[in-house]
Formats: sequence, C-alpha cells, structure tokens
Amino acid sequence: MKEKMAKKPSTQRQKNTSQKTKKNVNYKRNTKNYTKRETLKKPLRIIPLGGLGEIGKNITLYEYDGDMFLVDCGMSFPDEDMPGIDIVIPDFTYILENKDKIKGMVVTHGHEDHIGAIPYLLRNFNLPIYATRLTVGLIEGKLKEHKLLESAKLITVKAGEKIELGKFQVEFIHVNHSIPDAVGFAISCGAGRVIHTGDFKIDTTPIDDYVIDMGKFAEYGSKGVLALLADSTNAERPGYTASERLVGGSFSNLFKKAEGHRIIVATFSSNIHRIQQIIDEAAKCSRKVAVSGRSMLNVVTVAAQLGYLNVPENVLIDISEINNYMPGEIVVVTTGSQGEPLSALHRVAFSDHRQIEIIPGDMIIISATPIPGNEKLVGKVINELMKRGANVVYESMYDVHVSGHACQEELKLMMSIIKPKYFIPLHGEQKHLYKHALLAEQMGISKENIMLSSNGSVIEVSSKEMKCSETVPAGRVLVDGLGVGDVGSIVLRDRKHLADDGIIVVALSIDRYTREVVSGPDVVSRGFVYVRESEELMNEIRELVCDILEKCYIHNVRDYNTIKTRIKDGVSKFLFTRTKRSPMILPVIMEV
Amino acid sequence: MKEKMAKKPSTQRQKNTSQKTKKNVNYKRNTKNYTKRETLKKPLRIIPLGGLGEIGKNITLYEYDGDMFLVDCGMSFPDEDMPGIDIVIPDFTYILENKDKIKGMVVTHGHEDHIGAIPYLLRNFNLPIYATRLTVGLIEGKLKEHKLLESAKLITVKAGEKIELGKFQVEFIHVNHSIPDAVGFAISCGAGRVIHTGDFKIDTTPIDDYVIDMGKFAEYGSKGVLALLADSTNAERPGYTASERLVGGSFSNLFKKAEGHRIIVATFSSNIHRIQQIIDEAAKCSRKVAVSGRSMLNVVTVAAQLGYLNVPENVLIDISEINNYMPGEIVVVTTGSQGEPLSALHRVAFSDHRQIEIIPGDMIIISATPIPGNEKLVGKVINELMKRGANVVYESMYDVHVSGHACQEELKLMMSIIKPKYFIPLHGEQKHLYKHALLAEQMGISKENIMLSSNGSVIEVSSKEMKCSETVPAGRVLVDGLGVGDVGSIVLRDRKHLADDGIIVVALSIDRYTREVVSGPDVVSRGFVYVRESEELMNEIRELVCDILEKCYIHNVRDYNTIKTRIKDGVSKFLFTRTKRSPMILPVIMEV
Repeated sequence: MKEKMAKKPSTQRQKNTSQKTKKNVNYKRNTKNYTKRETLKKPLRIIPLGGLGEIGKNITLYEYDGDMFLVDCGMSFPDEDMPGIDIVIPDFTYILENKDKIKGMVVTHGHEDHIGAIPYLLRNFNLPIYATRLTVGLIEGKLKEHKLLESAKLITVKAGEKIELGKFQVEFIHVNHSIPDAVGFAISCGAGRVIHTGDFKIDTTPIDDYVIDMGKFAEYGSKGVLALLADSTNAERPGYTASERLVGGSFSNLFKKAEGHRIIVATFSSNIHRIQQIIDEAAKCSRKVAVSGRSMLNVVTVAAQLGYLNVPENVLIDISEINNYMPGEIVVVTTGSQGEPLSALHRVAFSDHRQIEIIPGDMIIISATPIPGNEKLVGKVINELMKRGANVVYESMYDVHVSGHACQEELKLMMSIIKPKYFIPLHGEQKHLYKHALLAEQMGISKENIMLSSNGSVIEVSSKEMKCSETVPAGRVLVDGLGVGDVGSIVLRDRKHLADDGIIVVALSIDRYTREVVSGPDVVSRGFVYVRESEELMNEIRELVCDILEKCYIHNVRDYNTIKTRIKDGVSKFLFTRTKRSPMILPVIMEV
Repeated sequence: MKEKMAKKPSTQRQKNTSQKTKKNVNYKRNTKNYTKRETLKKPLRIIPLGGLGEIGKNITLYEYDGDMFLVDCGMSFPDEDMPGIDIVIPDFTYILENKDKIKGMVVTHGHEDHIGAIPYLLRNFNLPIYATRLTVGLIEGKLKEHKLLESAKLITVKAGEKIELGKFQVEFIHVNHSIPDAVGFAISCGAGRVIHTGDFKIDTTPIDDYVIDMGKFAEYGSKGVLALLADSTNAERPGYTASERLVGGSFSNLFKKAEGHRIIVATFSSNIHRIQQIIDEAAKCSRKVAVSGRSMLNVVTVAAQLGYLNVPENVLIDISEINNYMPGEIVVVTTGSQGEPLSALHRVAFSDHRQIEIIPGDMIIISATPIPGNEKLVGKVINELMKRGANVVYESMYDVHVSGHACQEELKLMMSIIKPKYFIPLHGEQKHLYKHALLAEQMGISKENIMLSSNGSVIEVSSKEMKCSETVPAGRVLVDGLGVGDVGSIVLRDRKHLADDGIIVVALSIDRYTREVVSGPDVVSRGFVYVRESEELMNEIRELVCDILEKCYIHNVRDYNTIKTRIKDGVSKFLFTRTKRSPMILPVIMEV
C-alpha cells in the first residue's frame, strides 16, 4: 500500500517533465546507481530560511534528492530594538554551504520583502533567477544600484509556464496581489506536489482584469497535493479582502469633493494598480499628475516602460511644473504613506519639500493602512498636514485602501480547492501562523498534518509523514551602511545603552615609571546631562576618580584593567545614587 | 443689549456663592474700587498648558479677574524620539509665576494623564487640590511615593457639590469613564458659564449603576453656556462607545470556553469596573483570583478599601498560592495589556515571571486595545505567549475591551444638550481636535466660534467674542531618573546620534612644551562595530589621526580646539567613505 501511494506522484512528475530534464534525471540515476524504490522513498525537504515568526525576509529552500532551489529572497525592516540598522536580510550560511546543489531561485513578486535581499545573495552566489516580467524589471533596478546587473542571470517566465530546476518542476500560477504579475508556484518532484501560494488575494475584479488562476489551483487540487504553503499575513482578519476596484470608486467620490483644490495621494510605490486608478481618475477630471519620491518615480518608469501602467498622453507632468497650474488642475502621487521620515509626504508635512508646499484646502489622501509599528509616524504626518490647513483623508471608512492579502474566507477557499494532505502556514508572526493553522483545522486538516514551524527548521514531507528533522542556521543579518553583518548583539546592546543614558568618558594619563597621574582625570559626557548646567556634577565625578586612583596607588594596584573596572564601578554607583541613571562609563588610561 | 447680556451671569454667580466667599469678593471690590461695570467686561481667560496637539499631559488654567485655578495636572509618556526618558510633564513656568493668583486645582479623575504630574508641581507650589474620593485616594498614593503626602492639601468633593475658588464657582458633575468617580466641571464666573467635560463617555448601564449626570449638563445648557471644552480622544470614531457591561458578557462566554484551563486577564490597573467584572465572573465560576503587577495591586487595594471594588470573601488569593490550585480554578488579573517590557504579562510571555509560567492551554485575555505606538510591543507578547502554547484572545471581535471615551454620536449629544456659544476641543492630537471641530460645525456652531488651539495659547472668552490674545510658556519637561528638566534637545540629539551610529573616542597625550604626542592616539569605539573583528579599521583610524597630528605639528597648529575639529572631520570623512556610517567622534587631548 505504501509503495503504491508513493509511486503515484513519481509517475505524475515524469509525465510532466520535459525531455531534456528527463534525460538528466535518468542519467544521474544511472550513475549513482539509485534504484527507483530508493528514490521514491526520499522525502521532500522544505526549509523556511526567513518569513516565519516575522513579517518580511521571506525565503524558502526546497530540497529533493540532492537538488535544491529557492523561493524568494526578501529583506525586512529593523525593529525598534535595532537602532541605526538600515535593513535586515536572511542568514545565507546554509545556502552558501549548498551552492553546488542549488539550481536557481524562483520569485513570487517584486515586493521588497520578497526580492530585497537578492543583491546581497548574488554578491556571494550568482544563481539563475526566474520571475515574471515586471518582477524581473524591478529586480533589474535593484541589481543596477548594486552594480550586479551585468553578471546576473535573470530569466523571464510567464504565469502558466513550467520550468525545470534539477529534479524539480515548477509551474508559475497567476495570483492577485497589491503588485501586478504576482505568482504562486506548483512544485512537483518525486515526493509529490506542493503549492506555494506566495502573497495573494482573490480579486474577481482586478484592475488588469487578470483574475487569480483558481482553475489551475483546482486542477492541482484534483490531481492531489501533498502540501500547501500559504500566505498568513491576514489570517487574523475575518471575511474577504475587498477588490482593488473599490478604491477607484472612493477616489472618484473624493476627487469630486476636492474640486478646485489640489489633491495629493500617498501610497506604496509598488502598488501600480492603485497608481493606475489615480491616473485614470485624474484624466477623467482633466487634472495633470505629478510624481514625487524616488522609489515612486522608479516604479512608475519601469511599469510604464513594460506596459503595466497605462498613462494617457499629456497627463504626466514633472513635479517642478505643478505651480504652473491651478490647484484644482493637479494631482500629486507620492511616497510616504507610512510616515517614513525621509519620504516625500513627510517632507511636505514638515515644510521641507522643495516643490510642494501645502495650500490650505489641499486634499491629502493616505491610500494605505499603517503597518504595525508605523501608527505614530503616520499620525504625526497627519497632524502636521492638518495644522497647515490640509484636508486629510485617512480613515478606513473612506475605503481609500484595500489589503493585498487574503482574509480568512479566501484562505479557506484556497485550502478547499487545493485539498492538501499537509498544511504549512508561511509569511507571518506566530499569531498569524497560529490563526492560519486554526483555519486549516476548521477545514478538516488534522492537527498532526499542520506544521507551525520556524526559520531554519527542516520540514521533511513524504506521503507517509511530515516531520521536523533538524535545524539549519537561519538568523538575521543586519545591514548598516556598507556593513553587512558587522553589527551584532553586542554593538546593538551598546547602542541601546548609549541611547537610554549616554556616555561618560573618563580620561587620564599615568606616568609609566612612577605610576603617578600626570594629566586628568578629564571627564567628558555626551547624551547624559546638559554639561553647561552640570559643571558641579562633573567636578564631583573628577574628585571621585581622583579618590579611586589614590586608593589604587596606595594599595599598589597597578593593573590598568583593574583600575578601569574600579573607576567604572565607582562612577556608576555614584551617578546612580545621585541621578537614578546609568550612563555608560568609558575609562581611557594613557601611559606616558 | 451688551450690558444686559453680560449682567446675567454675574447675578447667577452671586446667587450661588457661599456667604463667606461673597464677603471676600465684596471686600476686594471695595478696596480695589472696582465698579460693577468694569468687572463685568472682563473676559474669562482659558489657558491649556498641556493636552492639546498631544495625547496626555492634560492641564488647563482658568483665569478671571485676577483669580486663577487649574484643572488636572497630568503626565505623558515619552515618544520614540526621547530615548531614556521616563515621563514627560508640563512646563510649570506660567503657574509658578502666578502662584499668588492660583486658588487651587480641581481634578477630573485618577488617570496618570490627569494626575501624574501633581507631585512635580507640589514640590514647587503646594496648592489645595479638590477631587472625588477615589481620585483623592489615587493621588494620595502618588504623593506618598514622592514623600509629599503630609504637607499636601487634599479636599474630597462629591459629584453634585459646588466649591468656590476665588471669583470662580465650580460644580462637580458625574461622568462615565474607564475609572470610577470621574467628573466634569461647570465653571461659573462673572464672564459666564463654561462646561469642562474631562474624559467621558455616556454609559447607560455602567457597572456601578451610576450613569453620567446628563440632567445636570442639560440644566446648565438651558441656563446658557458660554463655552464647552470637551474630550476629543475618540472624535475620529463614528457611532457610540459600547457600555462597559458588554465586556462582562464576553468574559462570561470566554470563561465558559476556558473550563479546566487557567485564565489570565491583562487590563489597565485603573479600570476598576473591568476588574470588578473579572472578579464577579470568577466568583460565579468558583475560581480564585490572584493579582499580579505592582500598579494593579496598588489600585485594587485602594479601590477595595474605599469600597469601589466589591470582593466576595475567599475569592482573592495571593499570587504565590496559585500553584496550590488546579489550573481550572484560577484567574490571574495582571498588568501589561500594552506589552510594556517590565510588566507582569511581558515577564510571563518571556518566561521571566517568578510565580507564573505558561501552561499549554492557558487562556490569556488581553482586555485592552493597543495605544498607538504600542501595537508592535503587544504583538510581540502575543507571539511569545502563543509559542508557549497559550490560547490568546485579543482581537476586537471578541469584545473584551470597550473604550472609556465618547465617540462621535456621544460628542454630538453632549453639544446638543450644552448648546454652548463657543466650542474648544480638548485632549487630543491635531487630528482629533480637528475632527471634533468638524462635529461642532455639523451641530450648527459657526466656524468662528470654534477654537482649534494649542498648548500655551491664551483663549479669551466673553459674551462678545472668543480670541487668542497671547501665548505663555507651555512646553514639555522631561523626567529622566531623578532629573527633572536636565535632559533637553541637545542631550536627546546626542542620544539619537549615539543610538544610530555609536561613538569613537580618540584619546592622546601631548607634551605641553614640545607639543609632541607622547601617548596615543588610542581609539576606542562603542556601538559602532564589533571591535574584535575590526582591528584593521581601528588601526587605519589610528594612522589617520597620526597623519592629521603631524600636519598640525608641521603647520604649527597649536590650538587644541582646532586640532580636535581636524581629527573629528578627518575621521568622520574617512569612516563615511569606508562604511557609509557617521559615528560620533569624540577627541580627548590631554596635556602632560
């Protein structure tokens, strides 16, 4: 019975593979002297190297019978406990250890949390990357910035097409999301078929009229799917995610209301369908559209070139031209919907934008929902815009934003169509994965067939069982300026300490022979108290250090490390008693 | 006509004032030779010293004819751009300049954003404080901690009572809020009557059956109210705020679902009615209740002593006893509903709580909504609890929390009852005040009779007009440890710089006569890179500094400040080119 069960997927796979790959497979089998039976027993290994227990940094490694490939390679944004960090990327250790086995990478879509770490991987390992046309365009932009484009191997694949990656066959299946040209994957190998949805929603009226290919998913579902790996981002939200087209209707109403006034819409630069709807509505109202924000300009340029954005003639103008028109003739599309301090909208709000100054009556539409953690930043921008007399539309009741991720009913629908044996929730913090797992249980998948996993866990799947067999390195690597990985936990701990209480440097020179203090102690502080008003406290620290040094001298303590420790402890204790604060104490002893 | 209008409030006032105060007033009038007419022309001055354009730090000063009093004296929590700061309190400059005129303070309720800064004011100015019984109890607790209780003048006033504060008469009017014993004020003086709502909601089925005294508000409305100052916290939210009793129903359902499992409920320690409902439901289910968290214990003790919390016998147990019972016999009430890193729930989540360790199956109810800015903290706690196998209930759909503030329909109802001539939205960021002002417009109050004000603005109100006449000092004062106001913008700027990029100290000793370097340069870094892996970079900095010093020596640059600046600039430039980071460079030159 076992044998029969196991055979079926293999047959399936062979039927689907192209002639060329078949040959390869056969060749390898022969040389390695595999018997068919041995091969069939091998489980599929699924290794999420990022994206579990977190939002962002999505990357998954698939391994079967010695062949591997990657799905996505994203970045994430630093937490509030990572001051100064620019971005966070996955730990590539396991990938680099297995370079020889990895046949390539397939990419679901062009969002930063799925493509943002590609340049950092390509520096170390130049593997072929397969993606749809827009996604390739966006990756190209990134690689150009990192001067990696020329050597890169980017291969454009259309949704509906299949590619071979060693012993794997991967079919690209169109899905809806908040960026065009997004796909999920049907992954077939000797162990069976797996569906990897990527980020998706079910939009029956998308702006490009290209509805998610539920038929293809259903086809796989009826053939039999071993495991489903699906997007958990919205697993906490009941119901369905509304269609992107809903936002167009809201824009239409708001544009009417704003007659005679300027309109500024802030949204995600990658939401090309949103931008399309803004352009369409502007054209209808005979308004010109200007674009502000570097990333917005980049994406609009790429999307227009590739035909994903349809811009009527004479609608787009340069941002420098907006003041040649009446306010009622202008729409500005801008970045900054998350309140990011360097974004265009933030600069507008704080009167720091070169071309745009708020005119009272301006309608500002924030066409986005704050990502958790950004609520206060967005609130600040709204407050400032209002202080300058702008009419800010931001509340959910105005329907100026819809999510790009499937809500509970869509997730359940996907499960019901795929009918997987095993279910592995992807993309989300523990609470999202957990809720997604609960939904799977509701759909009749038994608890032991659902895997709540974590980054670095090796999930082995076969028709017989699903288990976590081992773990591989899968942490976070911090990027700060040009440094990749040179800021670790000690540096971060010091940064937090410095941020909370500042630093006090105690410097002194000691005669190398007599062991007497020949200069200092000098006390310098930063981030502790306003020094000009705390002369007395600084003097007291100086006296205290002199006392400590004298005691060291008397007791013949000559080791500099011991003296430093005594200064550190003494000053710390004194300051905590006096101020209830604990600045970092940094003694510097110079030998003369 | 003008005179007639103006006379009316004055008559009203005199009729209401007590014998004693009347005498005072008459006496003063005679000595100062005021004519009645001059007095009547004087406007009421309303000076919000905190709470406008921000959440928290609520404090308002009222002034009429040389007499002043305060409403509330709250604190706020530091923003993410104030690292290391414990709390933020109002700037008391204007209050301390006018000590002689200020007759006292009235307090609306016992929340930190309304009472938290009282100890800091009382250190400088021991004025009488009038509040309801529970509020007095909570203020007493604070003053005890600050060793100010003995000298404080706390006067308990019941809702429905009136007090005299110089030329003012203030009536305490009961309102509903997320803490018992909350009041608003009807403030009467020669210029007319003003209603100051304080934080409020309209709860027709509150837990203590003590509904907001709408009758009294209506009575004032029919007599004629010059100005309404009202709570804007929920002005963005349509509809009505649900009754606190709704939460009790949810608890009842959830407690049933959790049969056999332990229940842990996290909520605000001051929400005594919420705690009452938890205790009631626990008693019904024959569960014992234990309390965890210092502030929760404090409030429960005060509230039980004063009779605001009704605890059946043998229900409360000490937290150390919980393991003597089966999980299904226990409810723990705890702090930490905002994910605060030092709170009880946070410690439970991260296995750092002395008495409570998560047992898989525990039901954790987070009976609160994250305050903007705390979303990520709360999310982290939920994720950790789930990883440990807890069943966490936190989503809005479970109705485990209702707000304590009036939503749009309640705010409109209040306006329709008060029928004020002027409207001044209080308590909120610009967006809340703005939305509240829009509601007032919808209610027929003309735009010029609505004042969108800011902290420190002096609003002059008379029957003739409302205007902003001048501004007085009203900023924020930062409390860090024992330091009040010694951390200002320069220290904060340094802290942020240190947090983002760390610090590099360059120390050297120079011979005072020969001007030669006799020791160093030593390079020490903190929060910049992991030093052990960056020896080379540190060496390069050392060499660079040697070069700079040599050039200074050759060019006969002898001024230490110039040498320091050259080191700073040189090292900064070098490091930015090499790392794209800008650590703080701190040169220390010692003369030997």
